[in-house]
Amino acid sequence: MNELFTDDYFMRKALDEAHYALEKDEVPIGAIIVSNNKIIAKGHNLTETLTDVTAHAEMQAITSAANYLGGKYLKNCTLYVTLEPCTMCAGALYWSQISKVVIAAKDEKRGFLSNGIKLHPKTEIQFGVLENECSEILIEFFKSKR
Amino acid sequence: MNELFTDDYFMRKALDEAHYALEKDEVPIGAIIVSNNKIIAKGHNLTETLTDVTAHAEMQAITSAANYLGGKYLKNCTLYVTLEPCTMCAGALYWSQISKVVIAAKDEKRGFLSNGIKLHPKTEIQFGVLENECSEILIEFFKSKR
Repeated sequence: MNELFTDDYFMRKALDEAHYALEKDEVPIGAIIVSNNKIIAKGHNLTETLTDVTAHAEMQAITSAANYLGGKYLKNCTLYVTLEPCTMCAGALYWSQISKVVIAAKDEKRGFLSNGIKLHPKTEIQFGVLENECSEILIEFFKSKR
Repeated sequence: MNELFTDDYFMRKALDEAHYALEKDEVPIGAIIVSNNKIIAKGHNLTETLTDVTAHAEMQAITSAANYLGGKYLKNCTLYVTLEPCTMCAGALYWSQISKVVIAAKDEKRGFLSNGIKLHPKTEIQFGVLENECSEILIEFFKSKR
C-alpha cells in the first residue's frame, strides 16, 4: 500500500463523514468505499433527516458505489466504516460481494458479528483502525443526548 | 377484518408488484405496506434495473411508507411480501418496528428465519398466504433462466 493511502487515511475520511452526520444531529456514523486507492462513494447516517430507517451510512455508500461503477457487485472495493455494520447493512454487503470491509469500532449490541451474521465468503474483514476516535464521537453524542 | 380487505386481497396486490418486476426481467418479488386497510406503499424488486443490491421490494416499500407517514417507525402497519425477506430486509424491518409481516412463500436458503435472524419483538409474523401462487412465479422465472 502507498504510504499516503493507508487504512488510517481512509478511515479518517469515513470519520469526516461521521462528523457531517453529527452536524445534522444524527448518530455520527460514516462510511466510504475505496477502489484502487480512489474514494468512489461516501455516506453518513441520515435516518432522522430522511425519516428513513434504511438511510445508514453504509447503505448509501453501497448504492453510490454501484452507481459509480455501473454494476451492482463491488469487486476490488473496500468499505471503511466507523462502526460495525448492523444486520441490515451486513445483508446489503453480502449481496454486494464487496472485497473487504474495514471497521473502526465494534458494536456489541447491534453489530452483525454479535448477531452471528456472515458476510460473503469473498469478503475480508478487518477491525480496529482508528477505533478510539470513531468510538469517542459516538460516546460523546449519546452523552449529550442523556 | 372487513370481507373485502382480507390477507388474500392484499397479498394479491403484492403479487401484482411481483408481476411488474417480472415484466422488467427482475426476480419477481413484490411487497406492499398497509395501514388501516389502506395501501400506503408498494415496491417490487429492481436490483438489475437500478444496478443496486439494496433495491429489494421490501426496502423500497419501507422507505416509501415512512415517507407517506412522515415518520420512520411503521406503527400499525403490515407488510405483505411474496417471498420471505432476506437478512438485509429483515434488518430494515427490525429498525422500522413494523407491526406485522405477512409472508407468502418461504426462502429456505436466503430467508431471515433460516438464518436465525429475529425481527423486532413488536412485530407479528404470519406465513403461507397465497404461498403457491407467489412461489410459482419465482419457480417459472428461474426455469426460464436455465
